[in-house]
Amino acid sequence: MDLLFIGDVVGSPGRDMVSEYVPKLKKKYRPHLTIINGENAAGGRGITEKIYKKFMQDGANVVTLGNHAWDNKEIFEFIDRTKWLVRPANFPAQVPGQGIAYVPSGEFEIAVINLQGRVFMNDLDCPFQKAELLVTEAARRTPFIFVDFHAETTSEKQAMGWFLDGRVTAVVGTHTHVQTADNRVLPGGTAYLTDAGMTGPYDGILGMQKEAIIQKFQNQLPARFEVPKEGRTQLSGCLIKTDRKTGHAKSIERILINEDHPFHDY
Amino acid sequence: MDLLFIGDVVGSPGRDMVSEYVPKLKKKYRPHLTIINGENAAGGRGITEKIYKKFMQDGANVVTLGNHAWDNKEIFEFIDRTKWLVRPANFPAQVPGQGIAYVPSGEFEIAVINLQGRVFMNDLDCPFQKAELLVTEAARRTPFIFVDFHAETTSEKQAMGWFLDGRVTAVVGTHTHVQTADNRVLPGGTAYLTDAGMTGPYDGILGMQKEAIIQKFQNQLPARFEVPKEGRTQLSGCLIKTDRKTGHAKSIERILINEDHPFHDY
Amino acid sequence: MDLLFIGDVVGSPGRDMVSEYVPKLKKKYRPHLTIINGENAAGGRGITEKIYKKFMQDGANVVTLGNHAWDNKEIFEFIDRTKWLVRPANFPAQVPGQGIAYVPSGEFEIAVINLQGRVFMNDLDCPFQKAELLVTEAARRTPFIFVDFHAETTSEKQAMGWFLDGRVTAVVGTHTHVQTADNRVLPGGTAYLTDAGMTGPYDGILGMQKEAIIQKFQNQLPARFEVPKEGRTQLSGCLIKTDRKTGHAKSIERILINEDHPFHDY
Amino acid sequence: MDLLFIGDVVGSPGRDMVSEYVPKLKKKYRPHLTIINGENAAGGRGITEKIYKKFMQDGANVVTLGNHAWDNKEIFEFIDRTKWLVRPANFPAQVPGQGIAYVPSGEFEIAVINLQGRVFMNDLDCPFQKAELLVTEAARRTPFIFVDFHAETTSEKQAMGWFLDGRVTAVVGTHTHVQTADNRVLPGGTAYLTDAGMTGPYDGILGMQKEAIIQKFQNQLPARFEVPKEGRTQLSGCLIKTDRKTGHAKSIERILINEDHPFHDY
Ligand SMILES: [Fe+2]
Ligand SMILES: [Fe+2]
Ligand SMILES: [Fe+2]
Ligand SMILES: [Fe+2]
Ligand SMILES: [Fe+2]
Ligand SMILES: [Fe+2]
Ligand SMILES: [Fe+2]
Ligand SMILES: [Fe+2]
Repeated sequence: MDLLFIGDVVGSPGRDMVSEYVPKLKKKYRPHLTIINGENAAGGRGITEKIYKKFMQDGANVVTLGNHAWDNKEIFEFIDRTKWLVRPANFPAQVPGQGIAYVPSGEFEIAVINLQGRVFMNDLDCPFQKAELLVTEAARRTPFIFVDFHAETTSEKQAMGWFLDGRVTAVVGTHTHVQTADNRVLPGGTAYLTDAGMTGPYDGILGMQKEAIIQKFQNQLPARFEVPKEGRTQLSGCLIKTDRKTGHAKSIERILINEDHPFHDY
Repeated sequence: MDLLFIGDVVGSPGRDMVSEYVPKLKKKYRPHLTIINGENAAGGRGITEKIYKKFMQDGANVVTLGNHAWDNKEIFEFIDRTKWLVRPANFPAQVPGQGIAYVPSGEFEIAVINLQGRVFMNDLDCPFQKAELLVTEAARRTPFIFVDFHAETTSEKQAMGWFLDGRVTAVVGTHTHVQTADNRVLPGGTAYLTDAGMTGPYDGILGMQKEAIIQKFQNQLPARFEVPKEGRTQLSGCLIKTDRKTGHAKSIERILINEDHPFHDY
Repeated sequence: MDLLFIGDVVGSPGRDMVSEYVPKLKKKYRPHLTIINGENAAGGRGITEKIYKKFMQDGANVVTLGNHAWDNKEIFEFIDRTKWLVRPANFPAQVPGQGIAYVPSGEFEIAVINLQGRVFMNDLDCPFQKAELLVTEAARRTPFIFVDFHAETTSEKQAMGWFLDGRVTAVVGTHTHVQTADNRVLPGGTAYLTDAGMTGPYDGILGMQKEAIIQKFQNQLPARFEVPKEGRTQLSGCLIKTDRKTGHAKSIERILINEDHPFHDY
Repeated sequence: MDLLFIGDVVGSPGRDMVSEYVPKLKKKYRPHLTIINGENAAGGRGITEKIYKKFMQDGANVVTLGNHAWDNKEIFEFIDRTKWLVRPANFPAQVPGQGIAYVPSGEFEIAVINLQGRVFMNDLDCPFQKAELLVTEAARRTPFIFVDFHAETTSEKQAMGWFLDGRVTAVVGTHTHVQTADNRVLPGGTAYLTDAGMTGPYDGILGMQKEAIIQKFQNQLPARFEVPKEGRTQLSGCLIKTDRKTGHAKSIERILINEDHPFHDY
């Protein structure tokens, strides 16, 4: 039972990379499940139903989100009918959408959980307490549990990895838009990666045009950031191989495709 | 003119890794300069003069710091006599110590600059403005300029990389204690890595014992974190190869040594 | 049914003001209940059992706390046996102590609730959701409900005031250590004051010695702040008069005693 | 040499209060200079040239700003020609506008300085260092120096008050939109008030419609806040009386006008 995960897709450059490489990656790795983080898919801010559907056409089985989930207001219309879309589970109870999805894949069922950190982010419910609840619930149905932990700090992410070690298949971080090199299987059998990285422009800052951001750091004036329309792009993600019985991870491999790291189909 | 950089050394487990592997890495790569970030070297909090001297004995030519520089009060006694110790240059002018060092290496001289980010950190002087000043000054003496940018967010770090691209040899990030996988030479010729990662305990959280941190995320009570005394360890860093004339980087390679990634001397 | 509230008592200068003026204030106003916020009572950091008992001797009926509740570790020993001590109710469930107390006063019973804000503070459970639960519970027992909302920002505090307007007797803020001048009875009948202010040194910064704080703002180095041992002092608080039947507030008056505002017993 | 200061004017309800009461306050107190903080004058976000001119017509001599100065983009067109408009002086040097104005008033000249805090706000240049520079400069021209310190925390504001005590006429805080009750003349002769409070809607949260803000605290979803168009309003500010020779303050009196505190012309 193998899982392919694609990190935060930013704007049309990111979506184009998904369209081009997700089919190739699926052909190469033959994962049982493909997960895409789409919180920045619509111009860097949120997601539309059309983009969600395109992700599914391109090969995704489920789409996760993050703090930018709500930036495109269209989501409030469709989130309750898009079955394979999960937003951070620890938003307050009154928030629409779901934080866990049970995705069928042949004889298997995989629980996909999205959680958001609190350090330097929104004041949400405790992600550890919510993880405890959801993982306990999911464990009754399936040994395959994937957690996309959308958080800012490395400490909160590592803490979640160790907290869930041995109880879930994988804890993969998102949000910082930079892939980390610490992919490993923790002693309890949980695959861990602090951040999967970003899918989109290769020469911007977190996928946005760099000039305006550099200027803002210098002059501290309000600024609006845009996704560059042209230029080189990248895809970031990871592949997790699991034991078919226990759901424990056997390996977690980073995926990084850009001009400096071209894709190979072997 | 090649540079070896070792990321945040945490406590005695980190110092032991330095003692064991820096000699081996120097034998393998034969760098012209070896730089160690030592902000967490003394029990996770600051550095002592004895540790600084040990780093030099173990093969470092210069030691950089960060926000934890001042945690061990001993530093206020020795910082003005330790010639190859640099603290973030954008601390206010009245703060002791220096933010740039010109380190001789055979026929070369390498400027080593330490800067600290401001997002979610201390309220320091603008690191971009300070970088502008110091890089302009350094460029008059040498084409080899190394910047250790100690910052929390990926956006501020990438912004600094692009801001200095073509003007310095390398911008290497520190502080998050997790190595990133985005090592690359930017189009202008500057080697860039968002974070070099941490040197110390392999099974903790940022190098500290994990249990107390996981508990604090859950109960929000004050807690004191300690460096674990036993257990597996790692070393994180990078190697930058430069053009001997221009000072531009030709390559930047990540270094990660732990049980899952054993050291090879070939 | 009138309530006297004394804002954050800082160190021995603050405790001395309590000993001197609480008896005088009680004599003057004859409140049915006296509440003291004691989160900084022990040297500016937390509270001891001895101090708690002294507050009760000096005339308090109940003591509230805040983010500094846990700074003096002694609290973990006595918090579960000190019946009239309440800590912020929205700390996670596993934290010791209680967030609400039902304090008898003659024929009345008054519910005293302590809550903590989240903006720029600990990542706690939602104070609004917790307020909803506790106020609903308390309303079944008594129309007299007092809320000490310990928070940093004026927006979160005003939001709590309006959120509970008409459902509680009073929402009084603490934590900023500066008394605000916006005491009023909201349209629904809830007395509101953004911050009651601090009881302690008059010539420091938030009750701590000013020199070290001014220096830290300038040099950004770590520093330890102390309560000054000598000098002028102040007492801050408020008096709330309520309707005996509905529990609604009829008035809220600020109390401020210092050299510039001497106490009058008339 | 007396000064009238009006705290953050929010939207048209705030501007209407200015138009109605500033003339009355000037008639009552006959100040030599009237200062208005206008950072929220245009719908809660920034200021327009038209509003600036209206403030001058209504009796202001100079307008100060804050972190919201740049929210209405029109400012970048007019800020360099509006002579009596000051923005926080510690924005980086490349930012347009000025941070100090020397305002003539009969035989006197008054230096009006605007500074912004850094705690929980933009990463600006050090306000203490900037204050040092500007106050030193201003002291060569005039003993009358007024500082509007726009900051979030009470600690940073009190620190600025003590830092400048004896060197300026007054340090008056803005930004929290809640008037504090700690108006006093510090021992060195500087009038101090942590926050002057807000001029605008009386029944909102910081001058904005309360419902959306209360909801956002509960659901943590992005929301847009608006200034209510109807309802009760307030004016907040202070009056400082100074010694004609030394520029030291003799008194600082709070001004608060709303339905609960009606204006009296005696
Ligand atoms: Fe993202
Ligand atoms: Fe995000
Ligand atoms: Fe570090
Ligand atoms: Fe650090
Ligand atoms: Fe306090
Ligand atoms: Fe507090
Ligand atoms: Fe404002
Ligand atoms: Fe403001």
